[in-house]
Amino acid sequence: MKVGLLGAGRIGQVHAKSITSNPRSELVAVSDVFVDAAIKLAATYGCESLTTEEILNDPAIDAVLIATSTDTHADLIEKAVAAGKAVLCEKPVDLDLERARACLKAIEDSDRPVMVGFNRRFDPNFATLKKQFDEGGIGKGELLTVTSFDPAPPPVAYVKVSGGLYRDMAIHDFDMVCWMFGEAPVSVTAIGSSIVDDDIGAAGDFDTAVVVLKFEDGRIAVIKNSRRAVYGYDQRIELLGSEGLLSANNVLENTVEHISVNGAISAKPEYFFLERYKRAYEAEWAAFVEAVEDGQPVPVSLADGVLALTVAEAATKSSQSGLTVNMNSI
Amino acid sequence: MKVGLLGAGRIGQVHAKSITSNPRSELVAVSDVFVDAAIKLAATYGCESLTTEEILNDPAIDAVLIATSTDTHADLIEKAVAAGKAVLCEKPVDLDLERARACLKAIEDSDRPVMVGFNRRFDPNFATLKKQFDEGGIGKGELLTVTSFDPAPPPVAYVKVSGGLYRDMAIHDFDMVCWMFGEAPVSVTAIGSSIVDDDIGAAGDFDTAVVVLKFEDGRIAVIKNSRRAVYGYDQRIELLGSEGLLSANNVLENTVEHISVNGAISAKPEYFFLERYKRAYEAEWAAFVEAVEDGQPVPVSLADGVLALTVAEAATKSSQSGLTVNMNSI
Amino acid sequence: MKVGLLGAGRIGQVHAKSITSNPRSELVAVSDVFVDAAIKLAATYGCESLTTEEILNDPAIDAVLIATSTDTHADLIEKAVAAGKAVLCEKPVDLDLERARACLKAIEDSDRPVMVGFNRRFDPNFATLKKQFDEGGIGKGELLTVTSFDPAPPPVAYVKVSGGLYRDMAIHDFDMVCWMFGEAPVSVTAIGSSIVDDDIGAAGDFDTAVVVLKFEDGRIAVIKNSRRAVYGYDQRIELLGSEGLLSANNVLENTVEHISVNGAISAKPEYFFLERYKRAYEAEWAAFVEAVEDGQPVPVSLADGVLALTVAEAATKSSQSGLTVNMNSI
Amino acid sequence: MKVGLLGAGRIGQVHAKSITSNPRSELVAVSDVFVDAAIKLAATYGCESLTTEEILNDPAIDAVLIATSTDTHADLIEKAVAAGKAVLCEKPVDLDLERARACLKAIEDSDRPVMVGFNRRFDPNFATLKKQFDEGGIGKGELLTVTSFDPAPPPVAYVKVSGGLYRDMAIHDFDMVCWMFGEAPVSVTAIGSSIVDDDIGAAGDFDTAVVVLKFEDGRIAVIKNSRRAVYGYDQRIELLGSEGLLSANNVLENTVEHISVNGAISAKPEYFFLERYKRAYEAEWAAFVEAVEDGQPVPVSLADGVLALTVAEAATKSSQSGLTVNMNSI
Repeated sequence: MKVGLLGAGRIGQVHAKSITSNPRSELVAVSDVFVDAAIKLAATYGCESLTTEEILNDPAIDAVLIATSTDTHADLIEKAVAAGKAVLCEKPVDLDLERARACLKAIEDSDRPVMVGFNRRFDPNFATLKKQFDEGGIGKGELLTVTSFDPAPPPVAYVKVSGGLYRDMAIHDFDMVCWMFGEAPVSVTAIGSSIVDDDIGAAGDFDTAVVVLKFEDGRIAVIKNSRRAVYGYDQRIELLGSEGLLSANNVLENTVEHISVNGAISAKPEYFFLERYKRAYEAEWAAFVEAVEDGQPVPVSLADGVLALTVAEAATKSSQSGLTVNMNSI
Repeated sequence: MKVGLLGAGRIGQVHAKSITSNPRSELVAVSDVFVDAAIKLAATYGCESLTTEEILNDPAIDAVLIATSTDTHADLIEKAVAAGKAVLCEKPVDLDLERARACLKAIEDSDRPVMVGFNRRFDPNFATLKKQFDEGGIGKGELLTVTSFDPAPPPVAYVKVSGGLYRDMAIHDFDMVCWMFGEAPVSVTAIGSSIVDDDIGAAGDFDTAVVVLKFEDGRIAVIKNSRRAVYGYDQRIELLGSEGLLSANNVLENTVEHISVNGAISAKPEYFFLERYKRAYEAEWAAFVEAVEDGQPVPVSLADGVLALTVAEAATKSSQSGLTVNMNSI
Repeated sequence: MKVGLLGAGRIGQVHAKSITSNPRSELVAVSDVFVDAAIKLAATYGCESLTTEEILNDPAIDAVLIATSTDTHADLIEKAVAAGKAVLCEKPVDLDLERARACLKAIEDSDRPVMVGFNRRFDPNFATLKKQFDEGGIGKGELLTVTSFDPAPPPVAYVKVSGGLYRDMAIHDFDMVCWMFGEAPVSVTAIGSSIVDDDIGAAGDFDTAVVVLKFEDGRIAVIKNSRRAVYGYDQRIELLGSEGLLSANNVLENTVEHISVNGAISAKPEYFFLERYKRAYEAEWAAFVEAVEDGQPVPVSLADGVLALTVAEAATKSSQSGLTVNMNSI
Repeated sequence: MKVGLLGAGRIGQVHAKSITSNPRSELVAVSDVFVDAAIKLAATYGCESLTTEEILNDPAIDAVLIATSTDTHADLIEKAVAAGKAVLCEKPVDLDLERARACLKAIEDSDRPVMVGFNRRFDPNFATLKKQFDEGGIGKGELLTVTSFDPAPPPVAYVKVSGGLYRDMAIHDFDMVCWMFGEAPVSVTAIGSSIVDDDIGAAGDFDTAVVVLKFEDGRIAVIKNSRRAVYGYDQRIELLGSEGLLSANNVLENTVEHISVNGAISAKPEYFFLERYKRAYEAEWAAFVEAVEDGQPVPVSLADGVLALTVAEAATKSSQSGLTVNMNSI
């Protein structure tokens, strides 16, 4: 599979490594609005630096990976599908739910595969938990908890254009919950707070939040978010079922323990997403290649991306109103 | 300290052991509406079986421990205080908030010590976490999670008279949260569900719930309750702060690990409260004796008991309405 | 069962608590060469302070617990058995193997139960490991490791009269190994060192040692001893079998974990044997009472005590000679 | 650095990946006695398939990685050094200690870097433990334990030509011990057994062994080996020091825990060395490249390789004789 990479920033570089190390895919071109970034990344992997249009118009390119800024995602998905490319697009589809829904509608008649990059589904630990759950290991799922803390808050300038905690950060967790339970929730209740960083509060956003999602049959999921866990990236899942509990714990930096009169010290979690989800990014790309090459449905659809955004919209409204929000009303 | 025990049921028997094994207290009499139960327990510890009135009227008795049925708690507290006894009363003060508040008012002019039996504060693990938190180990508290699952649902007959999940079961967790953060929350949001046992739902109660409490300065606490965790009593606390995370994990039945081709198997948590909180009940009684004998304030006041009940009332209203409930409105 | 306690020192006090809290036994008398110690302990539990002779001659006393100094053990066992008492004697039987063997011979025609106090067999964790092993959980045992470190070295004055590391400290581990594998080893290889405390070396003893025991069918056990693990009492067992590995880990002071930028700190092991083996002492006594009252063999025989001492003798010779010592030669 | 790879078998393939993914090294040629294997591996990485002589004679090649059969190592090291190449050679240097010593002598006047592939030193967990130890985290080292179990015994045909458990398997552990303590032991005591696989015993080898190494100042190290731990590759280190204990535990397949009425099940260790030491092989190669390119001493010298072999020789003699063997006598 010949691949064009749109976007040569931090996350584009992560994907470039996955594309080039996968034996079934070949990176043939990179584009970026900062041409120098594209040239540099292309040089590293011995491929071409082109414009986005050149990539989309090149019939030899089978697939594009969209790792550009969020506001261009929906447009690029539509153009790439129109150009006959298979697409893997970074999350979110768009910050605006209507635009995301329009994008979904725009491509609905196409048979080109479009996948959204919810990388956490491909984390080996979460994937193992999901597999054990699907195999019936704990019976019926009843109460799901997602812990998702970043190591440090982003700059306020970023917060202001991010769409807010729910659309920017929790959206991964919304996808995780819907994926685990295999459907959309019926209602969303969100309680947000600004306690970590006053500037985030001044910008009208939250840095700490709890979101509770309720499902048709009464199952409940709770997501806990914080923009700051000084010890690193805290990413855990815990699922109580009728016959037991499944949990996926953090990945630690090493397995060393040091016991002294002060107690037993072991390692912190991996610091942030580049470390923790290194293997997840590789597996995500492999899953995309496999689905496209084998003509199977992609494991994360554009509809999944829109669903997560819908939950984010509901959470935003709930946080503002103090009311539980019905998903039908969004 | 000479002690009269009111109530010779399961929890009364637990307390009898604590009273008799503490070097500073002596069990002198037991009463119960089932006289045979009182006679049997009195025989075990070589003390008298009396009526409740006889105990309250005996000037040689310094303190009473109230372990009778919930609907008698408030009356007995008032009578015991009027009789000049120091009181340790099992939770809850009453299922009816107004009655509990009246009880608090009734004794406000007395100087007799009245303590409510929130035993979990005395669990060595939770007490250690609280101590480390108070010493500044994680800076400012921001997001507190209490996991509190029972091993199996109670009979529906019990559920019907229990006051509901929030007043009966979560009340311990409400006290835990208020104790950890040192004050009452400003608002309560509760989402309940009946997914474990249809009969509980038919009786109008929940068996699974998430309660989110928000505090004046933006701190958030989330409580997760389930009436059924088949693997045992799941009692954990986790507190994210500005400088780290404190967690108190379950107490396991033993420290053995068995590794085979099927993975590594270790022990389950202790089965239920009698096992898990054995040391907590002893420590609770010791704290009561110490406070009374040394003329210090009891570590859990009647006002604390009323506060937990107020949160339970708010949670009940929130679950029914789908609205966040302001504590001022209760 | 009416019990006389010989010895009111530290370990005698531990046993007094077990005897008095067991519903099937009653402490009726205490003796000690320091009469004041006996009087004080007797007062605590409301029993008599007598001489050892008075206890042995009292036909109302069914059993004695020998917690006196080591050099009196063998004599007291013989006298108590002659007086028709059931006996639980603290380890070791004697520091001199010949004396211990003579004691074993002296009582061989008696039917009075004599048990040696290898308390670790009754630790709930080690007992659970043993049970899982006996039930076939890991198939055939192949390689057993016993880690046994004290928190701090004893005074050199004690070391000089202790019989040395192998007879004083490792003897518990020798019993553990023989119990786990259900028989005596065929050879013993010991490597000792004095690296913790120069005074211990100057006194001709070791403070650090590794002992390797080989069994008839090729099974191997290795014991690691140190007189100093500053973090507490390190008591672990690990057993590799044909189908897996069983391990029993330390009991920690609490379950709290504190994660910060410096890593994750959890609690140390319980400090020393009084803390770690509190439940083991209670279970040991209960097992003795049960065996005697129900007419069953005691779970740790005097022959077991002599066997452990024989291994200690072999280890001592091996450490001195640099040779593997055949058990037949001892 | 232009690299020629000698040997295209399983371990050669592992190294090929490290060489090609390291930005400072380039794989230019591969040789193997099975020419087809060399051709295939060369094709995978787009380099040449040559004979070993061609590689050694090519002045453009800076370094060779020797991953051929053990009996060719010493010869190839000498030839490569004579040809001016930097060398990274797989362990062991030779099964015959005299040949290994001759090789060491043969290259002593050369300034070409020669490194031996003791990959475990580069495992991030063991390296972290070593670093914390060297920084004084536990004071003076006193008692070191190395647990090293393979998942399954090798074919007997392999065992027969392997040089035996000590030269083939434990040699890694001998290097680990000498590296940790920074010097050679003064004596070696080894107890071997054949209990896992009768055919291994019949071939005159052991499948289970304990080796105790004593150092000049009294420090002791104990190595536990088994050819079979059905649950996977068990590779742990534990070091007791004057101020605490450091341990490096196994790397597990994932972080999922499943709690049910049967207990808490978590993942097994990574299965074997290709999984467990994947990162170690990459780090080993990076360390070699860095040392050679920056003109620094290699982190594992040929003398280190000869030392480990000397300990293996001592262990073999000790196992056969039942005597502690002085290293001076080897």
